Amino acid sequence: MAYFDQIGKIAYEGNDSKNPFAFKNYNPSEVIAGKTMEEHFRFGMAYWHTLVAGGSDPFGAETAVRPWDKYTGLDLAKARVEAGFEFMDKMSLPFFCFHDIDIAPEGNNLREFQSNIDVIVGLIEDQMKATGKKLLWNTANMFTNPRYMHGAASTNNADVYAHAAAQIKKGLEVGKRLGAENYVFWGGREGYETLLNTDMQLEQDNLARMFQMAVDYAKEIGFDAQFLIEPKPKEPTKHQYDYDAATTIAFLQKYGLDKHFKLNLEANHATLAGHTFDHEIRVARTNGMLGSLDANQGDMLLGWDTDEFPTDIYDATLTMYEVLKNGGIGRGGVNFDAKVRRASFEPEDLFLSHIAGMDTYAKGLRVAAKLIEDRVFDSFIETRYSSFSEGIGADVVSGKATLSSLAEYALNNENPRKNISGRQEQLKATLNQYIYA
Amino acid sequence: MAYFDQIGKIAYEGNDSKNPFAFKNYNPSEVIAGKTMEEHFRFGMAYWHTLVAGGSDPFGAETAVRPWDKYTGLDLAKARVEAGFEFMDKMSLPFFCFHDIDIAPEGNNLREFQSNIDVIVGLIEDQMKATGKKLLWNTANMFTNPRYMHGAASTNNADVYAHAAAQIKKGLEVGKRLGAENYVFWGGREGYETLLNTDMQLEQDNLARMFQMAVDYAKEIGFDAQFLIEPKPKEPTKHQYDYDAATTIAFLQKYGLDKHFKLNLEANHATLAGHTFDHEIRVARTNGMLGSLDANQGDMLLGWDTDEFPTDIYDATLTMYEVLKNGGIGRGGVNFDAKVRRASFEPEDLFLSHIAGMDTYAKGLRVAAKLIEDRVFDSFIETRYSSFSEGIGADVVSGKATLSSLAEYALNNENPRKNISGRQEQLKATLNQYIYA
Amino acid sequence: MAYFDQIGKIAYEGNDSKNPFAFKNYNPSEVIAGKTMEEHFRFGMAYWHTLVAGGSDPFGAETAVRPWDKYTGLDLAKARVEAGFEFMDKMSLPFFCFHDIDIAPEGNNLREFQSNIDVIVGLIEDQMKATGKKLLWNTANMFTNPRYMHGAASTNNADVYAHAAAQIKKGLEVGKRLGAENYVFWGGREGYETLLNTDMQLEQDNLARMFQMAVDYAKEIGFDAQFLIEPKPKEPTKHQYDYDAATTIAFLQKYGLDKHFKLNLEANHATLAGHTFDHEIRVARTNGMLGSLDANQGDMLLGWDTDEFPTDIYDATLTMYEVLKNGGIGRGGVNFDAKVRRASFEPEDLFLSHIAGMDTYAKGLRVAAKLIEDRVFDSFIETRYSSFSEGIGADVVSGKATLSSLAEYALNNENPRKNISGRQEQLKATLNQYIYA
Amino acid sequence: MAYFDQIGKIAYEGNDSKNPFAFKNYNPSEVIAGKTMEEHFRFGMAYWHTLVAGGSDPFGAETAVRPWDKYTGLDLAKARVEAGFEFMDKMSLPFFCFHDIDIAPEGNNLREFQSNIDVIVGLIEDQMKATGKKLLWNTANMFTNPRYMHGAASTNNADVYAHAAAQIKKGLEVGKRLGAENYVFWGGREGYETLLNTDMQLEQDNLARMFQMAVDYAKEIGFDAQFLIEPKPKEPTKHQYDYDAATTIAFLQKYGLDKHFKLNLEANHATLAGHTFDHEIRVARTNGMLGSLDANQGDMLLGWDTDEFPTDIYDATLTMYEVLKNGGIGRGGVNFDAKVRRASFEPEDLFLSHIAGMDTYAKGLRVAAKLIEDRVFDSFIETRYSSFSEGIGADVVSGKATLSSLAEYALNNENPRKNISGRQEQLKATLNQYIYA
Repeated sequence: MAYFDQIGKIAYEGNDSKNPFAFKNYNPSEVIAGKTMEEHFRFGMAYWHTLVAGGSDPFGAETAVRPWDKYTGLDLAKARVEAGFEFMDKMSLPFFCFHDIDIAPEGNNLREFQSNIDVIVGLIEDQMKATGKKLLWNTANMFTNPRYMHGAASTNNADVYAHAAAQIKKGLEVGKRLGAENYVFWGGREGYETLLNTDMQLEQDNLARMFQMAVDYAKEIGFDAQFLIEPKPKEPTKHQYDYDAATTIAFLQKYGLDKHFKLNLEANHATLAGHTFDHEIRVARTNGMLGSLDANQGDMLLGWDTDEFPTDIYDATLTMYEVLKNGGIGRGGVNFDAKVRRASFEPEDLFLSHIAGMDTYAKGLRVAAKLIEDRVFDSFIETRYSSFSEGIGADVVSGKATLSSLAEYALNNENPRKNISGRQEQLKATLNQYIYA
Repeated sequence: MAYFDQIGKIAYEGNDSKNPFAFKNYNPSEVIAGKTMEEHFRFGMAYWHTLVAGGSDPFGAETAVRPWDKYTGLDLAKARVEAGFEFMDKMSLPFFCFHDIDIAPEGNNLREFQSNIDVIVGLIEDQMKATGKKLLWNTANMFTNPRYMHGAASTNNADVYAHAAAQIKKGLEVGKRLGAENYVFWGGREGYETLLNTDMQLEQDNLARMFQMAVDYAKEIGFDAQFLIEPKPKEPTKHQYDYDAATTIAFLQKYGLDKHFKLNLEANHATLAGHTFDHEIRVARTNGMLGSLDANQGDMLLGWDTDEFPTDIYDATLTMYEVLKNGGIGRGGVNFDAKVRRASFEPEDLFLSHIAGMDTYAKGLRVAAKLIEDRVFDSFIETRYSSFSEGIGADVVSGKATLSSLAEYALNNENPRKNISGRQEQLKATLNQYIYA
Repeated sequence: MAYFDQIGKIAYEGNDSKNPFAFKNYNPSEVIAGKTMEEHFRFGMAYWHTLVAGGSDPFGAETAVRPWDKYTGLDLAKARVEAGFEFMDKMSLPFFCFHDIDIAPEGNNLREFQSNIDVIVGLIEDQMKATGKKLLWNTANMFTNPRYMHGAASTNNADVYAHAAAQIKKGLEVGKRLGAENYVFWGGREGYETLLNTDMQLEQDNLARMFQMAVDYAKEIGFDAQFLIEPKPKEPTKHQYDYDAATTIAFLQKYGLDKHFKLNLEANHATLAGHTFDHEIRVARTNGMLGSLDANQGDMLLGWDTDEFPTDIYDATLTMYEVLKNGGIGRGGVNFDAKVRRASFEPEDLFLSHIAGMDTYAKGLRVAAKLIEDRVFDSFIETRYSSFSEGIGADVVSGKATLSSLAEYALNNENPRKNISGRQEQLKATLNQYIYA
Repeated sequence: MAYFDQIGKIAYEGNDSKNPFAFKNYNPSEVIAGKTMEEHFRFGMAYWHTLVAGGSDPFGAETAVRPWDKYTGLDLAKARVEAGFEFMDKMSLPFFCFHDIDIAPEGNNLREFQSNIDVIVGLIEDQMKATGKKLLWNTANMFTNPRYMHGAASTNNADVYAHAAAQIKKGLEVGKRLGAENYVFWGGREGYETLLNTDMQLEQDNLARMFQMAVDYAKEIGFDAQFLIEPKPKEPTKHQYDYDAATTIAFLQKYGLDKHFKLNLEANHATLAGHTFDHEIRVARTNGMLGSLDANQGDMLLGWDTDEFPTDIYDATLTMYEVLKNGGIGRGGVNFDAKVRRASFEPEDLFLSHIAGMDTYAKGLRVAAKLIEDRVFDSFIETRYSSFSEGIGADVVSGKATLSSLAEYALNNENPRKNISGRQEQLKATLNQYIYA
């Protein structure tokens, strides 16, 4: 059966430009910088936002109208599989992502939960074979159940820790079965509410132990997906250990885990941490840690995780600029970890919002590719740092310089090189011209 | 001559309780937890705020009335030395800290600057011998001069880089001559204004190279001070590389510099980065990186570095709690990197504000010591994490557990340990009772 | 039956100091500044947080363990009445506050809802008579039901507007029946998500019309409670019309409603709007608009409404300082609009957290009363502004001065009065001494 | 003489597209929606940022290289007049704005200051006649001089208040002489640093008195400019009384001044107050208080007033949308209250940054005009609120409805109108399509 009868396959511009559901900018098969748009983005549908979430907020009940809401329990889980693949088909989305509790009911105990997972994973596997859709990543939700109120891998309760381990083990097995490209850890309860009751050292040691066990088990079962940690500074807890890219890298380095993990970066998490999204990607990129992206955007005047669909052309351009500079997103992808507003509660809004996001990213990719092709920023930067390519600057870069040799140089340098303007305003205007063009 | 004739040596309570300049809580020689207050705090006077700053802000001219303002040039620099030692004496401050440009005029070129420094360092050395006051740390100011508009160790101009190296070299020599306990790096221009014109990788590589050169030179000249980096997320630049404790640790680890550096943490920098001060200290402590403290406080509703004198008893208590848990502040100290408000422009305000800060820290130390003596949080935490001391929890900590063994345990665990309340509200109320007591 | 068997009536210090549930600072019958503490505070229990809320957050399911959770439907509503009055008795709370949906299930339609309300209001009325507890205020919840997704009195849907009117009408009738001291409006959905789809003018006009209708109906039925609007800048919606005290006053003035309404101010709403709580109270006080207080506190590093129990002694002191300066809180009170943390999920935490809040406010009242008695700030301020009591300053205040007379004075004023220090640091230190004392 | 010899008159696209100084979007004489771009914008040069400011920040000395910096004193002031008119000519800027201390040195006393002003105003008058450039507004700087440390019209020092009055009086006379379209008040020191030493009531009363005196004096001398207050929430002081549009309106209404003043709104001030710029303009517009605009932008991740040149196309579009809906900006204009970054220190950057801003606004105007022409948002909103045009909704709007009639309707309304989606994502995508087009 079909859940979105009223909505045909979404058209690209040219096919049907009067259709409000037509893409204006996204054309999956268009080639940009040597790859199709589809290959560049590897767009993913977030199972939780698209198929599960209901639009509640801390002050309001669910509003979403979803055609599958007439079902309950395992029937509901099955209906969501069908609706999801229908949605991916109509939206030309090649990938999807899920948490374990998104796809199957938890039941009364762990065994029942795992049995429910197996049933649904079977259906998903069938659909994947039939449609060619792929699993970008899966993960275990270890933050919703009350059991995890004090954390999962950083809990103070050893039995809860064991429960989390069981969920991860199953998640790795599911990932292997479905050929997941990546496996993700997001630690929404790994952190603290107050330092007054917290043993930070033990909690972080235990967290590192869990990551190591997951690495070991994946190796044991031959699951070769890329492992990703997703930084977020806060919310739901007051402070989360994987605060931002740099903090997560510090943690991985300390525990010798940096060879086994990359980062899954999310736009709204970046801004909650006080950074732009392209900053976080740049930090990951220069550390060889860029894994995958969760595409969304926050409201810069609100202090919580609004997870809006990405519509800001500047962010999309600079994001894709970093991705292109990284040589592409690799085994990762661009997952729409974004939710329709509570008042955008109709099924159509699911389509319209994904179109909004995909069009924005498509435009961003085009602008970024042209900026790189024209070497707009590259040539400016090349000139700007040229003093490190010769003379005393080259000595610094080669490691030949010492404090003494540099001081000697400076003391005798009667006409030091003048600084030149950083031209921030001009560069921003140039970026605008590439966007408007 | 005396600059603060009207103000006698500041009294402790009991001596002269009617005096508005009497301390109520700080008594340097009082013994708490086995050390005198003076030994616990190693309080420092910040040369720049106390002797140099004039109270300007982005919209206002200087307001400060200072008895030494009648002098100019090198005479002014000399007068500040005298005033500073008089101030330290009257305030019972055992330490002081300075940037190179705080103590001596820059002159017309680097040679002149270094010559001025030598003159003043001679005077400081004499005063130190005469009074027993000590240098907590010195540093090079590489952010005020227009030369550093694009950074110092992360500049794009190799000649500026060399100039910075010369300043650091001199700073290390001055530190050695004056027996500095620490040497500090604060990178107010090490970062970027916009990524559009920035080669982040080269800038961070060069920054690491400069740190390594400083380590090498200190070894060469036999200067054994503790080396400190001071994190700050932003201001003056949009983004600074030493964003917070975790980011700085990631940087040091990456470049193999973590054995040579510790952190100088500042309260207002913590909150600008989105953290509490005790969080930053805890992060440093659990990484063995706690070096020294810059005591001040921000206004939590303002987004810039207000550098107010610390008067919040909660912050002071939790700060000293972390310090006591660290086994003390070591070679570091508590430097008042705090400035009187622009409208607190009279010389008396310098005294009143330091008294405000010292009293707050003294009270905080007393409360923290009592909390530890009574094992208030310690015993709560011990019980809270007890499940990791036995059985499956002990297996996790010892490294014996695997995902499989934990999953097996969880699947067969019919009566998992229940969670118990984190009691945040009660713990906060208990903290209050210790403060009011 | 009793829901909190294990907990006896909470003791005051002296009675039973070993009891973890003893108050250390709050003694309802203690007289301070001519009134008992009970009369000063008129403390209220928030029905929603204490009896209804379950500890969910945007990423987590409910955690709370509540003895009445075995019931459902109207039975649950009845059990909550009993538990609530037991709680108020044990905690010595003289007042309570509720939204309509807190006390009764909504049923299948408006008639059923109102019928359920009548049943429960009957029970509440009986309990009030039996115990002497009083209703500080009631209100209509017009933000949780999906119907209100686009607003209630500012909705674009006229039928929703009518529904809201029906809820308010019933609320006023219930308030009259129960002798409510106040009636509150909090507009959690009165605002916008995006200006792109919003007719701000029509929405605000309609909002004002609804307020006027409520005033008219209260008069019609002889309900003489104080009417209150509760400002909050954002959350759940992006922007709320009653942003802060000043914005709400602007609105009331514009529509000629300022004679009929006062403000119900909440601490965490103040900080979300960028203000301290005492600022908001001062603004209300100087405009004759201080109505009542919702006591809680936010986490200054988090951007959402955490509604924590108030434990900050500075905030409590300055809040009670403003209240005392206002001549008391009048018909308003201090309602604990605060929720236990999600991980403080045990019934005991309800008691411990209220004790934390009441003790903090009790200490704050004592400090504030002493500051006023000693005229600490009053005498400083009196001196500070004394130039407006005589000469040219008095001419300004009396309205006698003109630009010309002032300019004439200034041009001929050879020795203008010097500014004197604002002494911010000293005043803060003095406040600390009163708190520690 | 010419200060910008190397820069010719800035070209419009088509004239000289290879020129980096060419505008791509701004063409003053192009007609959009019935007016030329020049008439729509009434662009203004900010004297202070363009001719006076030197690029210092709280941690750095001035960096700007300006051809007139070889002069000092009154000669410098004269050179700035010449440079300013040359700049306006080359940039096709029809208006300018200044504070009194921007144009003339303060000298040793008020008489000297006023005499200096007269000299420079004479030169400005001549240049205006010769070039046709006009004064958008002038104002008195009452925040930089130390005298104003405690405020100007809200100071505690009556002699300072008189001095402020003298400055305003002169400002009004200068405005009249130069035919200023508006006169502006920005209260950078009108507010408080701490409530502990502040008599808020007296300060606001005195502030209102000063405004009334200014109104009276302008009437007396026949100066008919529009009077404007410029809201800003904080910086330099902790809290400023003219916090945002709504707060300022509340103040004006309270003191009966709302008929005499409109608002001068600034983008970066809006975001510091937690609002979007278009929100502030909408608030002013719906209250009939939109006066003029200060165009710039803040960095949403920084908490201070960065005053960057406006380059965000979304903000520019929504700003011009509100202006068009207002029927134009009237006697106000669009003043570039924006400063080049400290590292954009070369004279060329002044041109490049103004081009960046003017191009952004020009593009924004085009997009906004097309959105209005196509009734994109208008028709959506018309449909959305249609239920208030008939039946019960019309009764609400006409004032016929009462709580009772509405409740009666709601109780009997068996099939209430369903809500329809707010379509936020689609509307944002549509806005994007208009920008990319």
